[in-house]
Amino acid sequence: MADNFIGIDLGGTNIKIGCLSADMKLLWKTSIPTNAQMGPAAVIDRMVDAIEEAAGNKNTSLETIKAVGIGSPGPAKYAEGILIRCTNLPKFTNVPITKMLKEKLRLPVVLDNDANAACFGEFVAGAGKNVKNMVFFTLGTGIGGGIISDGRLLRGSGGNAAELGHIIVQANGRLCNCGQRGCAEAYASASATARRATEAIEAGEQSSLKEVLEEKGEITSKDVYEHLGKGDKLAKKITDETAEVLAVLCVNMLHCTEPERFVFAGGMIAAGEMLLDRIRYYFKQHIWKIKSEDNIEICFATLGEDAGIIGAAAMAGELKTKS
Amino acid sequence: MADNFIGIDLGGTNIKIGCLSADMKLLWKTSIPTNAQMGPAAVIDRMVDAIEEAAGNKNTSLETIKAVGIGSPGPAKYAEGILIRCTNLPKFTNVPITKMLKEKLRLPVVLDNDANAACFGEFVAGAGKNVKNMVFFTLGTGIGGGIISDGRLLRGSGGNAAELGHIIVQANGRLCNCGQRGCAEAYASASATARRATEAIEAGEQSSLKEVLEEKGEITSKDVYEHLGKGDKLAKKITDETAEVLAVLCVNMLHCTEPERFVFAGGMIAAGEMLLDRIRYYFKQHIWKIKSEDNIEICFATLGEDAGIIGAAAMAGELKTKS
Repeated sequence: MADNFIGIDLGGTNIKIGCLSADMKLLWKTSIPTNAQMGPAAVIDRMVDAIEEAAGNKNTSLETIKAVGIGSPGPAKYAEGILIRCTNLPKFTNVPITKMLKEKLRLPVVLDNDANAACFGEFVAGAGKNVKNMVFFTLGTGIGGGIISDGRLLRGSGGNAAELGHIIVQANGRLCNCGQRGCAEAYASASATARRATEAIEAGEQSSLKEVLEEKGEITSKDVYEHLGKGDKLAKKITDETAEVLAVLCVNMLHCTEPERFVFAGGMIAAGEMLLDRIRYYFKQHIWKIKSEDNIEICFATLGEDAGIIGAAAMAGELKTKS
Repeated sequence: MADNFIGIDLGGTNIKIGCLSADMKLLWKTSIPTNAQMGPAAVIDRMVDAIEEAAGNKNTSLETIKAVGIGSPGPAKYAEGILIRCTNLPKFTNVPITKMLKEKLRLPVVLDNDANAACFGEFVAGAGKNVKNMVFFTLGTGIGGGIISDGRLLRGSGGNAAELGHIIVQANGRLCNCGQRGCAEAYASASATARRATEAIEAGEQSSLKEVLEEKGEITSKDVYEHLGKGDKLAKKITDETAEVLAVLCVNMLHCTEPERFVFAGGMIAAGEMLLDRIRYYFKQHIWKIKSEDNIEICFATLGEDAGIIGAAAMAGELKTKS
């Protein structure tokens, strides 16, 4: 009987659960609403029920499951398995989630942050499959990240490595939600991209996005990319600014951990090849000239929403190997 | 008979050689002029002679030496042990230095870049002795770096990780020698610090450094720190700008690999505690507010010029363990 591993992606709205075989095949996946307001104990009970039900339905006997991995939003004490506090999970304060799950499931449980889990998923089964060094960015409300160096996920001294959205690319620049100035996230996250478009229109720039703002009262990054596709000049300028900051972020990470590949994930990659092409263009503009970096690949993630569960399960697989 | 390891720091002017015991004690060290113009074969012969002579004089029998490590300026193919080209070592083009040394000494030989060697030296025997995650900067003509993550030196996909001076802190900012704009090195290396002082005086700023410029025709970073000590206002401003860029570099590296400690080395640390205090001050100013980073230490290297030979020898020690 082959070993299988459960991966859990704990989000504010939904909990996604997947079962991964030892050879990295996703055997099944399921999803339940998080209902965080019910409190941690009830949420964890429902999580266990969902695992048992899905395993039964899919004919993967519970005995084949050897370990469980969870990807969650931070901050957390990952090594100790304790969620400190999550903006999107009210009532989840100082929750010893690995201990609680372990008691219910009687299996080893490992906790890591959601961006690391997604990064590891892409590394073992997606866009990073055939490289040993990769840097991963998720472009959403913020910019999350993950670093694979020589085949290992970098966790840092306290499990908070790869907060790549908070790398400063413009010292004393735009204020970021984190309190720093000039973070990449303050310019190039989905939210920041939308905000720059709004600011430009409010400052009087002409754009087909103006109607969107007037009708809906707000602009999203999706609007920006839709109007980019239709040839709007402001949408082009805003996208270029986003791409340039992301390219500088790639330059910086190249000089840190020297990956062979940069992988972009998250809602904003729906912008498609136009965004990727502009990131590649600006990377060439900004990268040093003393050594050719033409072999560096910049691409999109390939696992979509499954990256988190696959990565968390793969981490559980590593845990099993170690224990 | 205990095992010993040789560390070589190959510089443009001098070749430093040291012998390290397995418990990280520097048993002896020596130095010879490089005389790079004699060509690689002759230089390597002299290197071997110097090792044999020193070992004889210091009563460390050659049989106790189990491996040799070399730290050299790049670029090189480190894994293959080939020096591609070194600005400071004319005639050293595509030199298979590890193979050549191996044939003469009949010992395993490992090659890495000089900043990595110094970083590893500080990690095993100096300022990073009791941490597992550290980031190291050398402040000289340029800014070099090294990253220790979870006790391992990060080498990257091609041995060129941790080129930390070329992290962009001001997108589209000051032109760097590497062809990028806004690199930390373009503002905060020893040379860049001196250059900013010169520019300020030429732009008409008042300073006791003006006399130095008129007398010597140039200003060095050492002059800047001497006049800082004497209370010169421009020297204070220039030092503050250097410290601020170095602090932003620390912020960025904290968000990459989350070290517990930042270690500064190189000629410019002669500036002393005043420089360190200002880096710490600006780090507090620039770091995010969502999580306390009060435990992060920012300090100077402690091994001085021995870091390179100790680190290269310690790398040789690791090689021996593996082979």
